[in-house]
Amino acid sequence: MDFDIYDIIRKKRDGGELTEEEIRYFVSRYTDGHIPDPQAAALLMAICINGMTPEETTALTLAMTYSGDVMDLSSVNGPTADKHSTGGVGDKTTLVAAPVAAACGVKVAKMTGRGLGHTGGTVDKLESIPGFLTELPPDVFLAQVNKIGLSIIGQTGRLTPADKKLYSLRNSTGTVESIPLIASSIMSKKFAGGSQSIVLDVKYGSGAFMKTPKAALELAETMVAIGRRENRRMTAVVSNMDTPLGNCIGNNLEVIEAIEILNDRGPADLREICLTLAALMVSSALEIPYDDAFAKAEQTLKDGSALGKLRDMVKAQLGDSTLIDYPERFASCRFLHEVRASEEGYISSMNSEKIGAASMLLGAGRRFPDDAIDFSAGIVLKKKTGDKVDIGEPIASLHSSRDKTLHEAENLLNEAITYSKKAPPKEKHIYNIIHE
Amino acid sequence: MDFDIYDIIRKKRDGGELTEEEIRYFVSRYTDGHIPDPQAAALLMAICINGMTPEETTALTLAMTYSGDVMDLSSVNGPTADKHSTGGVGDKTTLVAAPVAAACGVKVAKMTGRGLGHTGGTVDKLESIPGFLTELPPDVFLAQVNKIGLSIIGQTGRLTPADKKLYSLRNSTGTVESIPLIASSIMSKKFAGGSQSIVLDVKYGSGAFMKTPKAALELAETMVAIGRRENRRMTAVVSNMDTPLGNCIGNNLEVIEAIEILNDRGPADLREICLTLAALMVSSALEIPYDDAFAKAEQTLKDGSALGKLRDMVKAQLGDSTLIDYPERFASCRFLHEVRASEEGYISSMNSEKIGAASMLLGAGRRFPDDAIDFSAGIVLKKKTGDKVDIGEPIASLHSSRDKTLHEAENLLNEAITYSKKAPPKEKHIYNIIHE
Repeated sequence: MDFDIYDIIRKKRDGGELTEEEIRYFVSRYTDGHIPDPQAAALLMAICINGMTPEETTALTLAMTYSGDVMDLSSVNGPTADKHSTGGVGDKTTLVAAPVAAACGVKVAKMTGRGLGHTGGTVDKLESIPGFLTELPPDVFLAQVNKIGLSIIGQTGRLTPADKKLYSLRNSTGTVESIPLIASSIMSKKFAGGSQSIVLDVKYGSGAFMKTPKAALELAETMVAIGRRENRRMTAVVSNMDTPLGNCIGNNLEVIEAIEILNDRGPADLREICLTLAALMVSSALEIPYDDAFAKAEQTLKDGSALGKLRDMVKAQLGDSTLIDYPERFASCRFLHEVRASEEGYISSMNSEKIGAASMLLGAGRRFPDDAIDFSAGIVLKKKTGDKVDIGEPIASLHSSRDKTLHEAENLLNEAITYSKKAPPKEKHIYNIIHE
Repeated sequence: MDFDIYDIIRKKRDGGELTEEEIRYFVSRYTDGHIPDPQAAALLMAICINGMTPEETTALTLAMTYSGDVMDLSSVNGPTADKHSTGGVGDKTTLVAAPVAAACGVKVAKMTGRGLGHTGGTVDKLESIPGFLTELPPDVFLAQVNKIGLSIIGQTGRLTPADKKLYSLRNSTGTVESIPLIASSIMSKKFAGGSQSIVLDVKYGSGAFMKTPKAALELAETMVAIGRRENRRMTAVVSNMDTPLGNCIGNNLEVIEAIEILNDRGPADLREICLTLAALMVSSALEIPYDDAFAKAEQTLKDGSALGKLRDMVKAQLGDSTLIDYPERFASCRFLHEVRASEEGYISSMNSEKIGAASMLLGAGRRFPDDAIDFSAGIVLKKKTGDKVDIGEPIASLHSSRDKTLHEAENLLNEAITYSKKAPPKEKHIYNIIHE
């Protein structure tokens, strides 16, 4: 059937509901270049302001999913689960939750992205392990998932091309902040990834895209609804990103901290969210009660089987697996600079976005998609929100090989931290869990 | 001051009010090509949906006005008045009201446009007079206004370039239907025209852009408010375009009908609206009561002084002025085809848009801006809404030199006309007048 993009734009402008056919027409004609950017921008703005019904959002998700390749996991010999985080600062949960789920018997065939701006990406973190391949041919990827239950690779260029093109347009036209558009963008990539169970980690707070728990919950519920309409097993966590997750921000620094957790050590906030996500993957994929899944997940930290899965994956993807057992051998930076408390009292808040930006300045992130990154650069927090500090006490160390931006990064970090005389209320790490 | 277009888009998207500086930044940067079309399209859609305050609409109008040349009428020796119609079918009011106002002592220095689609343009109508120049150097234009009180020329290319560029983008992105955008587009051209008194004729109905009197009144009030903020003497008429105005549609056919009115003959509906518009121009420019101005205007039809002004203008702009006195000498078409009533009863409605489209098919209008037009082509209505007809009685004659589209035009005309057994309620020609 043929449509007129002009009628589609006006319908959405006037608050109408687009049909599945109209949405498919728009997505396919925009992707193949027939609909020019200004018309697409006008429609995206109308969607931003007037919203989309659940039916429209699902249709948009599916149209974007099938705009490119869809991973066929039918040859995987077991239940598959994927996880997705909406992005944060210090978020290395995939590096823990995926091996834990694999150690529990879930097949984790995961495609993931690179970092941009103040948030990091799992592909960059994995590439900080020398030799680690984040591009594998599909048959090698699937064979590895069948053999060890775990493979994590970068998204291929042929995955959801419609989403890529639309996302880039949204970025330049002020049409990013829209729950239907965000939800369909994420869910199209998850559908294209092919897993049966999908666990979402939707962040809120200073370092996240959603600033309030309410907005994060709405996004989580929208995505869960899209997935369930398409018969995926959906669960989600709504979690706090007011403060960076764990103590380490940076690429190999985060791998090192993930290894700490897999050794049943490390920061409690990070351990809690990693185990929660892993337990949801296990519970959903293996169809067992959540509490049993949680206990099973925790056991894989104690018996070393989760660390073993990470080691197996690194080895299979040609990374230097000795680093998993000797993380102190990871490359380090030329400069290590201590940042000290400027006041006495309690740390009352740490702005994650600014801390992420400081880490980017140190070399750990990219300002633009083609920037090079320094795998060893980043920040190790020694104090976090709620901690008591004396004036001059070290609160963080900056790792960098760039002396020029060190001072700027330190200023940004200091700006990110506020102090109070009284202890602040305890932060809640997990706001909500949407079970099956 | 420098702004970020991205922040401006998001502000309007979220329902905020843009500052004058932000609007000026957008208009100047879009016009000079720094802001690309997709960003402008997104902002226009946000304006379409979220609207603009009177302050924002005025700022947009002024930014577009000063994006190009502004006519300086300070050398004109008398009060200046301009009129603008939002466009209709058979609307030749400028050809009558401007000479009438000039005959009453108003200085009419008018710039006007070409027709597109189902609506005609005054420039095309004037060019149907052989030799008539619609482009004059500014000093020649002003000298003529001083000498005979009247000149009508086409809009120069350097007038409101921002409006031209934005209008073309709006046309392709579903962002035409917005009162602030329509009002600022029209008023920027009126401000650039330089006249002190401005009379607006806002049409509603099947052949007009605004479909209801209420919407037309809202547009009229918005434009009047913009003009008054800038100290222009503003008046407006809200008038019916459910039925074509007068009996003639086409270029030289409309000039002929205008000459009829100037000879104090011709259709009553056309005479009424022409005199109303002229009276508002005269009342506003000469600062005399409306009823006195109306009587003065009517007198110029009776004493031939208005027709004299048209003749003087045609002569001054090198047109064949003998045609003003011998309109039967205008060129005519190869084919003249009678359309007959298909039913017995009353004509209950005549869809102006369809009749305008039929006239375009006959050669009188342009589908695309670069199409050539046939000055003699068009339609003469012999019956109008409310008239009683017998089956087979002639209701219209089609003038065309294209035999191929004659049949299609006849079908369209027949589609445009509906019949009823009972006489329909009498149509009101003028819905509202906004006096000073």
